[in-house]
Amino acid sequence: MSIRLGIYGYGNLGKGVEYAISQNKDLELCAVFTRRPPDTLHIKSEGVPVVSSSLVDSYADKIDVLILCGGSATDLPLQSPKLASLFNIVDSFDTHANIPAHFEKVDKAAMAAGKTAVISAGWDPGLFSLARVYFSSVLPEGNDYTFWGRGVSQGHSDAIRRINGVLDARQYTVPRPEALNRVKNGENPSLSTREKHLRECYVVASPDADKKTIEKEIKEMPNYFSDYDTTVTFITKEEMEKNHSGLPHGGLVLRNGKTGDGSRRHTMEFSLRLDSNPEFTGSVLCACARAVYRMNGMNMRGCYTLPDIPPAMLSPLSREDILKKLI
Amino acid sequence: MSIRLGIYGYGNLGKGVEYAISQNKDLELCAVFTRRPPDTLHIKSEGVPVVSSSLVDSYADKIDVLILCGGSATDLPLQSPKLASLFNIVDSFDTHANIPAHFEKVDKAAMAAGKTAVISAGWDPGLFSLARVYFSSVLPEGNDYTFWGRGVSQGHSDAIRRINGVLDARQYTVPRPEALNRVKNGENPSLSTREKHLRECYVVASPDADKKTIEKEIKEMPNYFSDYDTTVTFITKEEMEKNHSGLPHGGLVLRNGKTGDGSRRHTMEFSLRLDSNPEFTGSVLCACARAVYRMNGMNMRGCYTLPDIPPAMLSPLSREDILKKLI
Repeated sequence: MSIRLGIYGYGNLGKGVEYAISQNKDLELCAVFTRRPPDTLHIKSEGVPVVSSSLVDSYADKIDVLILCGGSATDLPLQSPKLASLFNIVDSFDTHANIPAHFEKVDKAAMAAGKTAVISAGWDPGLFSLARVYFSSVLPEGNDYTFWGRGVSQGHSDAIRRINGVLDARQYTVPRPEALNRVKNGENPSLSTREKHLRECYVVASPDADKKTIEKEIKEMPNYFSDYDTTVTFITKEEMEKNHSGLPHGGLVLRNGKTGDGSRRHTMEFSLRLDSNPEFTGSVLCACARAVYRMNGMNMRGCYTLPDIPPAMLSPLSREDILKKLI
Repeated sequence: MSIRLGIYGYGNLGKGVEYAISQNKDLELCAVFTRRPPDTLHIKSEGVPVVSSSLVDSYADKIDVLILCGGSATDLPLQSPKLASLFNIVDSFDTHANIPAHFEKVDKAAMAAGKTAVISAGWDPGLFSLARVYFSSVLPEGNDYTFWGRGVSQGHSDAIRRINGVLDARQYTVPRPEALNRVKNGENPSLSTREKHLRECYVVASPDADKKTIEKEIKEMPNYFSDYDTTVTFITKEEMEKNHSGLPHGGLVLRNGKTGDGSRRHTMEFSLRLDSNPEFTGSVLCACARAVYRMNGMNMRGCYTLPDIPPAMLSPLSREDILKKLI
């Protein structure tokens, strides 16, 4: 019997989850929930109902795990606690500073309802969190470094699009090679935000817009750009479509540590190169949905993050097959 | 209160564990067990008793977790099941083909005694097993590659030392750059054993030995060398000491997978560069000992491997701190 899944929100991430479900024989898509008028939505999976998100309650018995594909800014802070009282859920809440508060709200709701939730799944937070936990557990004396990119930051791209006179924008986060090389060479430098990453922006401006003003607004935007060295390049709509239509991303977590009398150095590194951030993130969410289903069956209720989950629970393989084939 | 640990076997790995314990505030070394006459052994930790391994039973109440530091060929197959009926244990059993059988024996002993065991800890098996489980769970359509080295294989070095006329030997396992590059470029090649790794041997021969015969014996040794391209270089005792006294190692697990309509490619990679294989392996065993102690306290009895263990259990940090600092 397959694990019955629902997708809540059908943007890039929802589509990525849909693709990922089709790659896993033990997972089955049962419904897609949307805020848009359901009949305007065309999904890839044939025969799967598209349902108004206002009707999600009526699916409480028909879905084993609901995968929330909304955004961290305004969607998930409300949706995750609410839906965790009706469903086992997985979300990709990624506002690092607010994770403990989000965890608490979801935990309370899930506990009260006997449901299981995994929050902040994906790759960062998610797989990168795992790397940080494993690495620091094995090498307690050392330094962690996380680099992101080269890849498209959707949050930063959206922030640029909100500027007056901007028609479209794409922002690439780029690790600075000099910083990356120092870390990879086993140094343990203290690196400022500005020293670690560059921000490359490609912008389509409306014909009447003042490009100087747009560039200034971008570069001085607090939280998003003011702490970074930022480049702004104006391009045409056609160039944007041709050269910047994908959503690649990636990055790495690296720890330099030492053991023994301090003279032995060790480097642990986990890296990702992704053609499509939402499709890869969707794949992580699906593996977590499998774990959530199993954990709920084992009476592991409340809220969890990836470091709480035995890795074997994410795998389609049995414990015996893991022992034979993957150990 | 610290977790009270014992080290069973004081070779390179036992010394690595001893160093690692000293780096972890919540771990305490309570005894070192040895087959050698205890008063001939000089350990680094002051005030810690060195005890004959024949007296280990009398420490059953004084030690929370016993870390077994013997070899996989003849020590652990006997020691792990026997000691798992008296202690919570961790071992680094690494004969991949025999892991399921070893697991079963240890599981039976530990279950009967209400103890907890983690076997096959270290980096391969161990951290590399984890990478294979995570990677295949996230990207079900793809191919895994594991490369080892450049590093010293102690098993292969020992095999050479057993040849007549060999005084000392060091064998380096070396990934073939052409194979590594193809995999890193996202190709999914089928690679034979010979195509993946080279074996570099450095040998000190006795003055009267026939080097031609030694070289032939090495290159034709079944299981160890006959399936590989092997180089043999004769060096002096002095050169051996000067250039080959360390035990560096490392390697990587890489998965190339695809999602969506098949056009999106993703690469996940976990790599290690280690100055000292036994010190790093000892560090992994210590993190596992912490998990074993906690798991036994939670009534998780019997035998486990790393993919069964929630990563947070390996960490000295509390769940709250992990949520705040590492997610």
